[in-house]
Amino acid sequence: MRATVLEAAGQVRLADVPDPVIERPGDALVRVVLAAVCGSDLWPFRGREPFTPGDRMGHEWIGVVEETGADVGRLRPGDLVLAPFAFADGACGPCRDGLFTSCPDGGFWGGRNDGGQAEAVRVPFADATLVPVPGGADDGLLRRLLPLTDVMATGVHATVLADVRPGSAVVVIGDGAVGLCAALAARRAGAERIFLVGRHPGRADLARRMGATDVLDAGDPATAAFVREETGGGVRGVVECAGTQSALDLALDLVRPGGVIGSVGVPNGVDGVDLYRLFRQNIALHAGVAPVRRYLEPLLKEVLAGRFDPSPVLSAELPLRDVAHAYRAMDARQAVKVAVRP
Amino acid sequence: MRATVLEAAGQVRLADVPDPVIERPGDALVRVVLAAVCGSDLWPFRGREPFTPGDRMGHEWIGVVEETGADVGRLRPGDLVLAPFAFADGACGPCRDGLFTSCPDGGFWGGRNDGGQAEAVRVPFADATLVPVPGGADDGLLRRLLPLTDVMATGVHATVLADVRPGSAVVVIGDGAVGLCAALAARRAGAERIFLVGRHPGRADLARRMGATDVLDAGDPATAAFVREETGGGVRGVVECAGTQSALDLALDLVRPGGVIGSVGVPNGVDGVDLYRLFRQNIALHAGVAPVRRYLEPLLKEVLAGRFDPSPVLSAELPLRDVAHAYRAMDARQAVKVAVRP
Repeated sequence: MRATVLEAAGQVRLADVPDPVIERPGDALVRVVLAAVCGSDLWPFRGREPFTPGDRMGHEWIGVVEETGADVGRLRPGDLVLAPFAFADGACGPCRDGLFTSCPDGGFWGGRNDGGQAEAVRVPFADATLVPVPGGADDGLLRRLLPLTDVMATGVHATVLADVRPGSAVVVIGDGAVGLCAALAARRAGAERIFLVGRHPGRADLARRMGATDVLDAGDPATAAFVREETGGGVRGVVECAGTQSALDLALDLVRPGGVIGSVGVPNGVDGVDLYRLFRQNIALHAGVAPVRRYLEPLLKEVLAGRFDPSPVLSAELPLRDVAHAYRAMDARQAVKVAVRP
Repeated sequence: MRATVLEAAGQVRLADVPDPVIERPGDALVRVVLAAVCGSDLWPFRGREPFTPGDRMGHEWIGVVEETGADVGRLRPGDLVLAPFAFADGACGPCRDGLFTSCPDGGFWGGRNDGGQAEAVRVPFADATLVPVPGGADDGLLRRLLPLTDVMATGVHATVLADVRPGSAVVVIGDGAVGLCAALAARRAGAERIFLVGRHPGRADLARRMGATDVLDAGDPATAAFVREETGGGVRGVVECAGTQSALDLALDLVRPGGVIGSVGVPNGVDGVDLYRLFRQNIALHAGVAPVRRYLEPLLKEVLAGRFDPSPVLSAELPLRDVAHAYRAMDARQAVKVAVRP
């Protein structure tokens, strides 16, 4: 089959790789119907995160079950399934606590595991990992569902970490797909004022569509003063979706004493967190990779009921054979997120 | 009057200073009846924290009101009062949120403000800051109350930050006065297993008296493995009471995925917090200087009812004129905490 691999910094290509096969009785083989490129795929693509040449790519995807191992009971060939970005056994202590990303036998798609930007994926612990979509889906529904597999669930996790409450004012830092989804998640959680602070003025309309009430420029020195003025000294909850030192510094500038920073950006180039600043103002730092599996069922239900639509975050779609174009478009910020279709 | 001042690293002395006077209508003048030396006093004493020669010292103290300004309504001359280690106006946003240490008009005792290791203190915002002790106190009660003004309230704050729950297992890092008080606070919060990890084997009996069920050596490489083994992979709540890099690293080793580190040690020599480690395992870091005022009334009630006694943490008492001895004894770890009496 064909699968996206990272050959070298700046070079992804669709390669011929061996077809996946059932290796363990809990496995399922799933044919990918729609996948996406994630902002976090760009870190190794840009050579800013270590990788091994030949690493498989892609962790946001939806597919159809083709074959199941002997122990798989909840899934049948033909089922349309959502794949959270990490697989997990569903049975260990962390999984029982809803911390699927801390499962000692789990893992993430890509690297030495199969990746989602491919024709098919072998899924370990398929019963625990995959969430079936009842009734199948047309193209529109597929696009509304695809963001749940990572960025939308990550946005929700960010608002959970930042303890976003109904009626509150929230700052979201980052106008990438996760930041935009976090704005939508904040609106879903009942926040009334949602300041989205980003670096791409061209995304302002999209940001408002996703729930932002105020779209602000991270590079403008007046931004912090404006937020503090409007909120009487900063917000109780800041959602940090970039993972950079400047985003963290801005979060500390905008959170009020006793507040919470919920941080879901994959840390990149962060020197460290200034403990004294947290200590002096009793600021809680809740950083965490999203245990996406925890959020899939409730979000799926809301999308199916027509109450929730994160699809605007998918700004383009290409055939899987053009996956290299998808990376280049996102790297050049010409697209927020590109879907690829095998 | 006489007040303790820090002249140079390693040199405190009782100096003659001008008598304090009422400067603002909300002030009270309070004669100190019992004070203590705090572990955090040792940082500037050791030259490991900046200070200005002549800085006043001491932030743990109890006194008797001598004179009140025109706006003081809740206090009268003769009242015995507890002084939290920070004064605060009680009226601003942070104070209304219970974040008295973030009051923009507040401050800490010592430095350019009056210090508690002295004969008297001018207390700004006296109505909001001081807590009267109904009925006065004998020497035994004074000793049970004195720790409330900092270390005991800080221990309670640590267990609040670490979300310590009834029946849980907790790790307390640090066997100084705050760590010992945090063990007592964990017992008060209903924790069943309390691992106290310290560096002073001579404090084991005291630690057990203060609530620890297991007293462990921070320097023993087997300690971390023992805790992880006994708790099935680490505890949900770690209380960090040292503020050093090694204490934070140990906290990260002993907390389970999805857990919380409550950190109340004044950060000292901490390079930074490894954000990736927090992110990867969804570990919350709640660092915070204790808003002591918030905890004084409930703790006072429990002490007066005979249900709560943190006085074992006071291992010695000296006359105020021997305050330099008190510092040297604590610096040499010959005493956990020394009370000084004017």
